[in-house]
Amino acid sequence: MSNIPPQFALHPLDRTLAPALQARIDGKTKPPGALGRLESLALQLGLIQHSLAPQIRQPHILVCAGDHGAAKAGISAYPQEVTWQMVENFLAGGAAINVLARQASAQLIVADAGVAHDFGARDGLLDKKVGAGGTANYLAGPAMDAAQCQAALTHGAAIVQQLAASGCNTLGFGEMGIGNTASASLLTHCLTGLPLADVVGRGTGLDDVGLERKRTLLQQALDIWPQRPHFNPFPCAAQGETLKRGPQTDEAQSAENAENALCILSRFGGFEIAMLTGAMLAAAQAGMTLVIDGFIVTSALLVAYRIAPEILDYCVFSHRSNEAGHRLQLDWLQVQPLLDLDLRLGEGSGAALALPLLRSACAVINEMASFASAGISEK
Amino acid sequence: MSNIPPQFALHPLDRTLAPALQARIDGKTKPPGALGRLESLALQLGLIQHSLAPQIRQPHILVCAGDHGAAKAGISAYPQEVTWQMVENFLAGGAAINVLARQASAQLIVADAGVAHDFGARDGLLDKKVGAGGTANYLAGPAMDAAQCQAALTHGAAIVQQLAASGCNTLGFGEMGIGNTASASLLTHCLTGLPLADVVGRGTGLDDVGLERKRTLLQQALDIWPQRPHFNPFPCAAQGETLKRGPQTDEAQSAENAENALCILSRFGGFEIAMLTGAMLAAAQAGMTLVIDGFIVTSALLVAYRIAPEILDYCVFSHRSNEAGHRLQLDWLQVQPLLDLDLRLGEGSGAALALPLLRSACAVINEMASFASAGISEK
Repeated sequence: MSNIPPQFALHPLDRTLAPALQARIDGKTKPPGALGRLESLALQLGLIQHSLAPQIRQPHILVCAGDHGAAKAGISAYPQEVTWQMVENFLAGGAAINVLARQASAQLIVADAGVAHDFGARDGLLDKKVGAGGTANYLAGPAMDAAQCQAALTHGAAIVQQLAASGCNTLGFGEMGIGNTASASLLTHCLTGLPLADVVGRGTGLDDVGLERKRTLLQQALDIWPQRPHFNPFPCAAQGETLKRGPQTDEAQSAENAENALCILSRFGGFEIAMLTGAMLAAAQAGMTLVIDGFIVTSALLVAYRIAPEILDYCVFSHRSNEAGHRLQLDWLQVQPLLDLDLRLGEGSGAALALPLLRSACAVINEMASFASAGISEK
Repeated sequence: MSNIPPQFALHPLDRTLAPALQARIDGKTKPPGALGRLESLALQLGLIQHSLAPQIRQPHILVCAGDHGAAKAGISAYPQEVTWQMVENFLAGGAAINVLARQASAQLIVADAGVAHDFGARDGLLDKKVGAGGTANYLAGPAMDAAQCQAALTHGAAIVQQLAASGCNTLGFGEMGIGNTASASLLTHCLTGLPLADVVGRGTGLDDVGLERKRTLLQQALDIWPQRPHFNPFPCAAQGETLKRGPQTDEAQSAENAENALCILSRFGGFEIAMLTGAMLAAAQAGMTLVIDGFIVTSALLVAYRIAPEILDYCVFSHRSNEAGHRLQLDWLQVQPLLDLDLRLGEGSGAALALPLLRSACAVINEMASFASAGISEK
């Protein structure tokens, strides 16, 4: 497995503090369980941080941007130049994620993973271009080669390692890239076995004709891949069988899954998606809490999950998006999002909106009185 | 309708700004509708405030506390003294609502509507006691008389009128009162026609036996009311028919609904619930945004809704609680909550947790760039 960086190996979450955390939560002045998801969130944050007093420290939102060769084929409602224009909007502070990150007191980091535009050296933009013109068109061949994929993963990991070193322990993920819901659909189909048609959605707002065209084109992208991994994405699985969620205990199987995931990522991925995958693996490796956004960010997580399934323990799923495939991704992963607000913007907007809930979960465990300390009668 | 204070008459929401608000939201740098519920929330806040630039100003959470004569009959998992003990916890800053209001940068107001305890004069506690020992036991007769009901409504309204005068435009509602889910169940049944058994839940955590006992006792409370309004809560409706949600245009019908609602409130209500009803009507009258919490607060709103159905336009439903009847209340009102986090605490905890979403909705409409200002290509 020479092409999986060793730093991406993850330890399963250490659950030794679980009983003490649960006792601390149960002792608070409220009926047991009455704070619902806030309680399970407090428990998870405590486990991730190995602490009975978890805290959200220096939260950031990392937005990775990249262009897609396939975008010019008509898979998006918007022209490709909107990618760089929106990056300019991020830098000027006028996009939704600027506003929402500010509201959530989170720092925004914008990384250019391969936008088809020359920004020059710019304050507030991390130049991590893997390819200056965006990915190649997967309707004709692989979106990127193995070296590019590796570079994107490594760049993403490096950004996060620096954040972790500076004290950040909570990281939301976002993206920008015209055409990237199409890429996310292909990745999701290949990584989960969910039917392609079910995981192709309207993206930024395709009409019925546009949606049908997108489905047809993406099916073609699958058809021209000689290995046809969409029928049987994991060669070791029997024909027609799809791998189910759950940690792979067989080492050979794990290595093969990881290699297949990177192969699929190279074929259909965007540079921004690959960078997010690398960033996520590094964030979990550093013991951060990962705040997962919508459909595209979750497709990057699916790649990471196939490389290191333990990553799920470090993830908080911020919201359920209105993009068709996102609900299916979450169901496949058997996870529950915090919010369900019909968002379908990306940029990390859902991650930013969920951050106050993480802070509140920490405040509950750290600041509430206990029955004993407040002298309140129990049942 | 001598017993309905004239200040509770509500004007329907002025919708003249709707097209301009929608255009402003649609012009922001995002696909139309991509911010989902945040967009409809921004529109609603703009309409309530008659402003293209709505803002959350001096948000408060008003928690009303009261005791219930029926609580000693075994309808709650906790003993009655927990009401005053929890009020002490509010005053000491250790309860969930203290922590969550602080997280949401909202001011907390605690009002004693009739807790069976002598607190003396205390900083941070509004003494608005309607009855020093709590309500009478509705298992034997009316919980309060008409004068007490009126006093609680008026006290609630007065608190809010003072808040409005000082510049507060957003008010969350919460409650504390051992036994008040039982009261809320009776109110909900009588005000909506929903079956009693369906709207009786576990409250602070009754087991199966306790739940069955609660259902039996509450059915008895209905049975001893000679008018038996649970079968036909509104005398003008035909036998077996229940009134449906929707503004009543017939004036005589409106007055009769209002009078019936107050009659039901007096019979089964808590002082804290009646105070919340008065506070809500005054808040809508003052053009505030009302942030509605869970099952008990929504039962107070149901009373207000029967008095002035226009109140719904001023309400944001913060969350869907895990208490059985709350989902039914929300469905009956045909409204969608923002959060669904399995909370079942009360105290206004859900209202506090939703406040950041209201602020974010305002920030989106006030701070995001438009396609025109950012020079971004449209579809």
